[in-house]
Amino acid sequence: MPLRVGIVGASGYSGSVLASLLASHRGVELVFCTSDKRNGESVAEALQPVGPGLRGLHFEANSAALSLSAGVDVVFLATGAEVSIDLVPRLWESTRARIIDLSGAFRLRNLDDYVTYYRFEHPRPDLLPRAHYGLPELYGSPPADARLIANPGCYATAALLSTAPLLRSGLVELDRVLIDAKSGVTGAGRQAKEDYSFCEVAEDLRAYKVLSHQHTPEIALGLERFGQGAPVVFVPHLLPLRRGLLTTAYLRPKAGVRRDDLIACLREAYADKPFVRVVDASRVGIKAVAGTNLVYVGVEANGETVVSVAALDNLVKGAAGQAVQNMNLAFGLAETEGLDGLTRFAP
Amino acid sequence: MPLRVGIVGASGYSGSVLASLLASHRGVELVFCTSDKRNGESVAEALQPVGPGLRGLHFEANSAALSLSAGVDVVFLATGAEVSIDLVPRLWESTRARIIDLSGAFRLRNLDDYVTYYRFEHPRPDLLPRAHYGLPELYGSPPADARLIANPGCYATAALLSTAPLLRSGLVELDRVLIDAKSGVTGAGRQAKEDYSFCEVAEDLRAYKVLSHQHTPEIALGLERFGQGAPVVFVPHLLPLRRGLLTTAYLRPKAGVRRDDLIACLREAYADKPFVRVVDASRVGIKAVAGTNLVYVGVEANGETVVSVAALDNLVKGAAGQAVQNMNLAFGLAETEGLDGLTRFAP
Amino acid sequence: MPLRVGIVGASGYSGSVLASLLASHRGVELVFCTSDKRNGESVAEALQPVGPGLRGLHFEANSAALSLSAGVDVVFLATGAEVSIDLVPRLWESTRARIIDLSGAFRLRNLDDYVTYYRFEHPRPDLLPRAHYGLPELYGSPPADARLIANPGCYATAALLSTAPLLRSGLVELDRVLIDAKSGVTGAGRQAKEDYSFCEVAEDLRAYKVLSHQHTPEIALGLERFGQGAPVVFVPHLLPLRRGLLTTAYLRPKAGVRRDDLIACLREAYADKPFVRVVDASRVGIKAVAGTNLVYVGVEANGETVVSVAALDNLVKGAAGQAVQNMNLAFGLAETEGLDGLTRFAP
Amino acid sequence: MPLRVGIVGASGYSGSVLASLLASHRGVELVFCTSDKRNGESVAEALQPVGPGLRGLHFEANSAALSLSAGVDVVFLATGAEVSIDLVPRLWESTRARIIDLSGAFRLRNLDDYVTYYRFEHPRPDLLPRAHYGLPELYGSPPADARLIANPGCYATAALLSTAPLLRSGLVELDRVLIDAKSGVTGAGRQAKEDYSFCEVAEDLRAYKVLSHQHTPEIALGLERFGQGAPVVFVPHLLPLRRGLLTTAYLRPKAGVRRDDLIACLREAYADKPFVRVVDASRVGIKAVAGTNLVYVGVEANGETVVSVAALDNLVKGAAGQAVQNMNLAFGLAETEGLDGLTRFAP
Repeated sequence: MPLRVGIVGASGYSGSVLASLLASHRGVELVFCTSDKRNGESVAEALQPVGPGLRGLHFEANSAALSLSAGVDVVFLATGAEVSIDLVPRLWESTRARIIDLSGAFRLRNLDDYVTYYRFEHPRPDLLPRAHYGLPELYGSPPADARLIANPGCYATAALLSTAPLLRSGLVELDRVLIDAKSGVTGAGRQAKEDYSFCEVAEDLRAYKVLSHQHTPEIALGLERFGQGAPVVFVPHLLPLRRGLLTTAYLRPKAGVRRDDLIACLREAYADKPFVRVVDASRVGIKAVAGTNLVYVGVEANGETVVSVAALDNLVKGAAGQAVQNMNLAFGLAETEGLDGLTRFAP
Repeated sequence: MPLRVGIVGASGYSGSVLASLLASHRGVELVFCTSDKRNGESVAEALQPVGPGLRGLHFEANSAALSLSAGVDVVFLATGAEVSIDLVPRLWESTRARIIDLSGAFRLRNLDDYVTYYRFEHPRPDLLPRAHYGLPELYGSPPADARLIANPGCYATAALLSTAPLLRSGLVELDRVLIDAKSGVTGAGRQAKEDYSFCEVAEDLRAYKVLSHQHTPEIALGLERFGQGAPVVFVPHLLPLRRGLLTTAYLRPKAGVRRDDLIACLREAYADKPFVRVVDASRVGIKAVAGTNLVYVGVEANGETVVSVAALDNLVKGAAGQAVQNMNLAFGLAETEGLDGLTRFAP
Repeated sequence: MPLRVGIVGASGYSGSVLASLLASHRGVELVFCTSDKRNGESVAEALQPVGPGLRGLHFEANSAALSLSAGVDVVFLATGAEVSIDLVPRLWESTRARIIDLSGAFRLRNLDDYVTYYRFEHPRPDLLPRAHYGLPELYGSPPADARLIANPGCYATAALLSTAPLLRSGLVELDRVLIDAKSGVTGAGRQAKEDYSFCEVAEDLRAYKVLSHQHTPEIALGLERFGQGAPVVFVPHLLPLRRGLLTTAYLRPKAGVRRDDLIACLREAYADKPFVRVVDASRVGIKAVAGTNLVYVGVEANGETVVSVAALDNLVKGAAGQAVQNMNLAFGLAETEGLDGLTRFAP
Repeated sequence: MPLRVGIVGASGYSGSVLASLLASHRGVELVFCTSDKRNGESVAEALQPVGPGLRGLHFEANSAALSLSAGVDVVFLATGAEVSIDLVPRLWESTRARIIDLSGAFRLRNLDDYVTYYRFEHPRPDLLPRAHYGLPELYGSPPADARLIANPGCYATAALLSTAPLLRSGLVELDRVLIDAKSGVTGAGRQAKEDYSFCEVAEDLRAYKVLSHQHTPEIALGLERFGQGAPVVFVPHLLPLRRGLLTTAYLRPKAGVRRDDLIACLREAYADKPFVRVVDASRVGIKAVAGTNLVYVGVEANGETVVSVAALDNLVKGAAGQAVQNMNLAFGLAETEGLDGLTRFAP
């Protein structure tokens, strides 16, 4: 019997990709999609899926999310942190659904970080330790009793996959993990803002949220979770492309460590991971991963510096794809089920 | 003594380009810029001009336009038709300034066309015959007594320059002038609309306002003004680029007319026109004209069909540059004064 | 038992897409890929497919195509016309494989057209009438005895699907079918030419092969094949995007014909066609079809003019996807088998 | 009397921009342009300048460079290092012209660096100390007796301007200057390579020459020249845009150093420099500088990290514009002469 699943916030970029992934997932029945913006519209009409699926489904109001979730197995929240922080506790208490939250609302542990980086006091600190941080290649399958999965941020996924094994292996110094990140425009979500208009973004590049991006503490905590923390410096840039991001991480090698040791470390870490490919650093590119749940990782080094590069699609492995991967693992389905094709956001 | 000029609506794309052109124009003193959106801000800070100029100027409210215009020689309106239609009559009556209106508010003559294409009843039909349609290469310098210059639309400028001489020369049939047009995104103005966001526009192309675009009657009237009217079909498309447009016009040659006759006709029409270059049709491209006040025109033909192509920058020859050209001619300055460089819109 | 298939010329853009389609097609075993450029390389390494498939396959030399084809059921030629024109006759005579040729070498009938548009004398006019022109939505499944399928050109597919039913229905005049076409850069194939470099193409648009493109006679012949010919005018333009094309066709309605009649005609023509979607003309866009085997078609009209727009992906419905569709139909497989996902060209 | 100047290699991207700058420079007569690729063609026809200038000039063969240089005041070499390394000594010995070399052939001092990074043994080490490294904002005007000016690399210019004053001021630690750089495609020059084709570059980003780019020793030497060296880490990335680059430099602040100290340091360093603008780090973007000789610099910091960002146009301040600036200063012209407008590369 297929899992019954629903999506809250299914008309944004991540939500659209998630709807299209779930619509063609053989182990799933997509029973509801909410979107205040498109309330009442046909989901198939809005998303124009390539294949069948989504027929008959209409967007419902976000306010109906709680009641719609009564009978489902999984609720995905493709919503902003400020929506998730309100809705997750109510879903937790009033339903039996497992919750996969794509926002940052339950990814951190330190309450001060929410104040500093998200600009709110977290109302439910009790739920933070109960949220499983769902980056399967590093932390494995969600535990059987995990009601709430905090789906990782796009930058954090790339940064952690390219650095955490190197840190834990002892091959690099622990003084500083420096990540220079570059993301396409869908990273900002579907927005009617002049800043993201074609004329503003094309032929431009700039840094943003310099030293103040909310994925900074998420990456630092992720390193700790994997067994070896380190101070994190993080600066993102906005690229004139639609999908995908690339992180360039800078570390310092321990004495005597060679490039091949680092490559071997990554190869071992991801030997049996279907979505991570370790390749030459100069072949880690956005085009190769766009539309897919893949991550390309590569490392280069000399005696003074380690450069570890990762690329992924922010909407797939950085959001909707990883959410499906978490669902697959949480329910004992094949990890790659529904994730071996390409996705697009709604036209 | 320099001309004293002002701009109403100086923060949009056309207005920005106009401000930067006028700031470096040697025959002009730019005395005011209005913009409700940026009221109070430094113009130089907003437009970040490459060279000097604009220092000390601050945007003022659009509502101040009338009083600010009291002492100037020229007022440019880089505003929407609905703003111009209200402001132009008041400027006409309360000031002595010459008015150069970049909107479509005074370009047409037929009142029904305003209802059909602009969706309003024109409140001042008396002013329509008093507006000079300012496309100098076809209709010459504005008359000495022209108080109001209707600056042509971007598509109309390209379409007319590539077809009007061919029609008047008698080389082509008069049954139908068919124009397939393609424009970059600045053609839609500076807007915070999802439709013009990078993710929506990049890697896409579509037609819009199919058979209902407001430049259709403007082109038809322009042909008549040049001495030989014809029915006009016009379909525009939105391109994934920032600046520039290309029109591909289809006509039928009269019997015996050869390609060389058509080229000779265009060469003769533009022999002494500094901004029009007649080149091979396959060399008429947007990149060559972007940022400039130039128009590239080229024609190809066989026994059945004439294809006449034109490219220009919608913000310069299609808007601000042509407005400056009209000012130059109206006041006896050199036609190219201030127009021999490149422009950009504000960063 | 799966069909055994091979691809000649599998490293270009169309060939790459074809390899990835066939690698994941459930009714097919891909037994060889040739490419002189990548001879000896791993196909999976070159194409980096998202899912499994292609493992173990290595490119072989094009010169091996004939011997490799001995035991296969279908050979696809993703080669230039000058290669196909030499290889097809040899495959025809020395093997029993059905041949699906993606080039223009066998699409036409008139030998003069080959001289005019392809610049060669066709060496095997005897094979031209034996080639089935494979545009299934118009001409149905390939006949059981069709050894050679000429897979249609990308522009021709779009132009024919948007106009042929209107012509045959008698709703439009027959004097002239005018097609203004716009294509992304993959239309030119994978090439190391300065003309297709990023810096030359970005922010540009221009017409090319004005009135001399080789799809002109192909479209004209396609209309005749569908039962109602007409003179064709065709002008293509190069767009700054990667995949997809849009054709804007201009016709004249017969007296009394309304927009709804035209829409109804298209809806009826494509009622049971899985890959053609009839939508509002302003919703026919490249983004909606990119990566897919879909065609979007829409029509707009007033009393004087009919505008019929079509969009498709030049590499899929305009090349590799349609080739697979032809194979499916020729062998009695489901028409959509292997064609309900997204494709990409090799990274 | 105007300076008589010539350009060797005037048809590449930098050479084109240089020709257009010199053609409209009021203190200069451009007497020759060489280009083997365009030998014999009209320069104006090839470069299609916006304004007048370049009329009558035709490209000559590179082999004529030496004899053409006999009577000129300045020769610009917009050539590859392997051409410059051969030609510069001959110009030095056989002419009296001052030489401004845009390649890297004479920028370094350490012969091993040429072997490591440029892959050749430098044939004329005696000339290296006689070359003036021409980055005026840091090292002032070329000395009166400087026959040879090594025009800095594009990345090096940005990296040095954003870091050298901070290092010399003692505000930051000297352990490591880490520069993550991102450049548009013109940085690779005008090339017919598949790697730089539109389809390969669009929607992609990747690192290249990781830890092995030839600007690494140039930046390190530039810091020393300014009075305070430090180890340099440098990784460049290829952006899907045409012009401009951005460097993000990471440093560590000395104890107690605040963001405002760093900003004040940069403001003081560039107080009277017409081409450098110190702005907020998030406003340092490529679009603001594209086409101009401007550099935008901004700095952000917390207690652990300093992030100093710079943006410039690789073809102007990173190549041709800076070359003109060096000429202006070397000959006592106004520093900004001919450099206060926008430039484009040839269409």
